Amino acid sequence: MAPSACPVPTFRLKRSQLKVRFCTNDSQNSRGDLVGLLRRHGFDISEGEVTAPAPAASLILKERGLRPHLLIQDGVRSEFDQIDTSNPNCVVIADAGESFSYQNMNKAFRVLMELESPVLISLGKGRYYKETSGLMLDVGAYVKALEYACGIEAEVVGKPSPEYFQSALKEMGVEAHEAIMIGDDIVGDVGGAQRCGMRALQVRTGKFRPSDERHPDVKADGYVDNLAEAVDLLLQHADK
Amino acid sequence: MAPSACPVPTFRLKRSQLKVRFCTNDSQNSRGDLVGLLRRHGFDISEGEVTAPAPAASLILKERGLRPHLLIQDGVRSEFDQIDTSNPNCVVIADAGESFSYQNMNKAFRVLMELESPVLISLGKGRYYKETSGLMLDVGAYVKALEYACGIEAEVVGKPSPEYFQSALKEMGVEAHEAIMIGDDIVGDVGGAQRCGMRALQVRTGKFRPSDERHPDVKADGYVDNLAEAVDLLLQHADK
Repeated sequence: MAPSACPVPTFRLKRSQLKVRFCTNDSQNSRGDLVGLLRRHGFDISEGEVTAPAPAASLILKERGLRPHLLIQDGVRSEFDQIDTSNPNCVVIADAGESFSYQNMNKAFRVLMELESPVLISLGKGRYYKETSGLMLDVGAYVKALEYACGIEAEVVGKPSPEYFQSALKEMGVEAHEAIMIGDDIVGDVGGAQRCGMRALQVRTGKFRPSDERHPDVKADGYVDNLAEAVDLLLQHADK
Repeated sequence: MAPSACPVPTFRLKRSQLKVRFCTNDSQNSRGDLVGLLRRHGFDISEGEVTAPAPAASLILKERGLRPHLLIQDGVRSEFDQIDTSNPNCVVIADAGESFSYQNMNKAFRVLMELESPVLISLGKGRYYKETSGLMLDVGAYVKALEYACGIEAEVVGKPSPEYFQSALKEMGVEAHEAIMIGDDIVGDVGGAQRCGMRALQVRTGKFRPSDERHPDVKADGYVDNLAEAVDLLLQHADK
């Protein structure tokens, strides 16, 4: 598992006997688009090595026979191509960006209110993220709006949900105590993985803030300046 | 204080020696527009008899020297005409309807995130309401979104906030134990008024649901089929 910075070191990981998996909370893009993007940034990665909320949710929908009303961006819609969306009996909400209009929020709300036991599945619960144009509200904020209006609690598919980490471990065929999470988010990456029984390193890049090292609830097993340093550490230990 | 159904009985109240005040959570319209609407429905009412969230918030802003970024509908903007909105140091959010766009929500969010101690003032905290086109998300849902994203708690101006009921009592010049709230909302009207030391009747019209009479937390001091019955009750007791 690895964050989204400094591509080259992951080649060294993949040349080793260590198994590598990319575990993301991106719910705007299909795995195909994500992999294309990462490849253009120099990552050696295939769709099968990615754990992402949309395909994970798609699997859950199939298993439980749920027919979603989708409040998502077009970029990720292909992940739900095989899913029956007629006569919806749940709502799936992702980072919908511009599609978080009052009309679309009301539509999702009405679907939930018409259900006897409303089911709301949220791809992640991020509070916000940064784009070049400024801070943007993330899916978690809009989930809170629907939760409050309907008096329900959403099921979260994505970090830091333990089920999500477990699905990634299962796909890798390793136990939690054998795995190390590397991430830039102290709560979503580090805290979530630790609650699952994994160890976790925080990289001091991306979302990292110096105050993370004094976080009241979460203490990483180690802090590294960047992904290269994390890979060095892993390879040193793997050699022993 | 009275709900929005069956106008004629309020004439009888106003002919008595009882003081009457209309206490609303409407944050879409100015008091002028509200009074116009109620008058067209047969209510004998003037602006000075209305307690509404927007003018109440306007007063708070003045008292505390706050300069709001306004996420509101144009219909209520005139209530903030006297307020300096340059270089905002707080956000005021009302039932903004169509104006709850992703762009406008991000704008309000960014204002809050740029403040050292973000102040979010919410005109009510309604979950939803019904229009002819269907259920609509109310301001409370969007407040939850901003609260979650910013990690803050909003100050609510409106029912069921005790300060709001107290401001209405103060304007009437009566004590809580001398006043009776009549409303259709078991939590917002009845529960809120009772927490303030008032007695409260629920009318079985409007928002009323039969399950309200078995509400786990709130028990009205009485239930009446409509406003006329409430007025009968009040006048009977006033005569004694």
